[in-house]
Amino acid sequence: MTRTPTAEPGPAPAVADLATRVLAGDRLALTRAITRVENGRREAAALLQALTPHTGHAYLLGITGPPGGGKSTLTTALVTLLRARGDTVAIIAVDPTSALSGGALLGDRIRMLEFYDDPGVFIRSMASRGVLGGLSATTGDVARVLDAFGFDWVIIETVGVGQGEVAVAGLADTTLLIEVPGLGDDVQAIKAGVLEVADILVINKADKEGATKLATTLRGMLSLAHTPGWSPPIVQTVAATGQGVPELLAAIANHRGYLEHSGARTDRTRARLRAEVLDRAQELLTARLLGLMDGDAGFTAALAQLVARERDPASVAADLVARLAP
Amino acid sequence: MTRTPTAEPGPAPAVADLATRVLAGDRLALTRAITRVENGRREAAALLQALTPHTGHAYLLGITGPPGGGKSTLTTALVTLLRARGDTVAIIAVDPTSALSGGALLGDRIRMLEFYDDPGVFIRSMASRGVLGGLSATTGDVARVLDAFGFDWVIIETVGVGQGEVAVAGLADTTLLIEVPGLGDDVQAIKAGVLEVADILVINKADKEGATKLATTLRGMLSLAHTPGWSPPIVQTVAATGQGVPELLAAIANHRGYLEHSGARTDRTRARLRAEVLDRAQELLTARLLGLMDGDAGFTAALAQLVARERDPASVAADLVARLAP
Repeated sequence: MTRTPTAEPGPAPAVADLATRVLAGDRLALTRAITRVENGRREAAALLQALTPHTGHAYLLGITGPPGGGKSTLTTALVTLLRARGDTVAIIAVDPTSALSGGALLGDRIRMLEFYDDPGVFIRSMASRGVLGGLSATTGDVARVLDAFGFDWVIIETVGVGQGEVAVAGLADTTLLIEVPGLGDDVQAIKAGVLEVADILVINKADKEGATKLATTLRGMLSLAHTPGWSPPIVQTVAATGQGVPELLAAIANHRGYLEHSGARTDRTRARLRAEVLDRAQELLTARLLGLMDGDAGFTAALAQLVARERDPASVAADLVARLAP
Repeated sequence: MTRTPTAEPGPAPAVADLATRVLAGDRLALTRAITRVENGRREAAALLQALTPHTGHAYLLGITGPPGGGKSTLTTALVTLLRARGDTVAIIAVDPTSALSGGALLGDRIRMLEFYDDPGVFIRSMASRGVLGGLSATTGDVARVLDAFGFDWVIIETVGVGQGEVAVAGLADTTLLIEVPGLGDDVQAIKAGVLEVADILVINKADKEGATKLATTLRGMLSLAHTPGWSPPIVQTVAATGQGVPELLAAIANHRGYLEHSGARTDRTRARLRAEVLDRAQELLTARLLGLMDGDAGFTAALAQLVARERDPASVAADLVARLAP
């Protein structure tokens, strides 16, 4: 292979070349490959096909929880410990996206700048997309690229309130649900809804008032859930000081051991791949649907009838679907 | 019309009868009609067709914001004021749903029990559904039933972090975004993402430290957004004491006046209906997709190839879509 120039901006390298460079550990190629996957270009399919046989090494860790739970601080503390023992770590930070514009506001990833000089850490902020969906598919593909590159860990961090975000983190090998004391009643409700994706419950900011009460509540909720095989432990941490983080890492290792020995890891992988296929198929169909809607005279007329209350949305939707998939 | 027995459980009344009773103000019929719409039964289509011509009276108010923002308390305070002037109010409280099971954990709606004896208030908790989607469509249909029943206001309350939930509240006539001081960095990130759906920004718990700083931040973010026509005001409230709530109601009336006079209300209605059609069409297609996946020998084989890393999800998804919509 001849030497290729690596300075941006340049012509997009051929797919085979890009895959080769990713597998050789070229970091600029990695960034380009991820951008290509995120953009959903047609070439991404060939790239992923080339990389897929080289995946399977990385361990996927999902981290989710409500806003204000200190997920970023806890991720930083975990990464610091993992780096201290020589493991390499990639982080996919999924940021909430505006539903209407599809635009993303990147969050507080800037604090992760402390790993800026460390080639063993890679951080990518990713926007949860708009109506086109595809969050599971895109996250899965980005994780696949990072896995092929050779990272030991791929951490997927999401704000765990919306169902899409929870689903993405919940499909990791091990999923942490972060809770904090004193976030109010709404949080209690959400907690219940997302509890079942959690393999390990983390009470962060455990030095705050209410931590013991929260632990009791969570224990009570866990006792109501019937999960055969694995009982999620509750680990208390103070991410800002590092307190409890080694215990959290031990709990993760414990769960990893359980998954490997019980065969449950394959079940998880299968469920994750099934969700990705569904997600991607939905995305393809939605693009086709939008093609039938936007700029179509018949649809514009139907929309006017809807506004005039002469039709209802269900019948218009049924017509669209009949045109697309007879 | 002969008198029909109304005690549950009984046989489901015929659709025409149910619609007639909803329009006559029969509350049990209302509850049954909403359940039917939520279950997505085929009869719901006929019911909505019968009710749609009678809609258009209710004003849709969306309330969204991060967990812990006091949305329920603020809703209660608003409803109390609306009731004092004789307006009737229905509330659709969308609760976050587990992504994996589709099961819903109903939140803290119990506090709304204070309106239990008031026939001018109707409260319905609704689960944001699983992968089948349909949140916009279902919320729209439930609002349609409540509108036809004759409520003056339909309030749609969502936890505004996931994109689906924000989208639903954002499609109301007037949308309030509730923020509170001191919820941490994550919230700041989310705020940016959902800011553009807000017609009115509410700083609740404005007696807490940081309210002034939050107002400055929000004002700065608003000044960056280019929204022609309407500049979202910032209203400070303490929902628990009622402070600022009359001012909030005045801001809502102001926005309502703007919408009516500028013609923007029709644009909103059109956007809402378009989103509902898309949502419902996606739901129909997803059901068809799942039919091709589950229990299908070919798909099971493809999944095994995925697990073995012999294929990648994009190609399996493309095959599925080709079968459904050639």
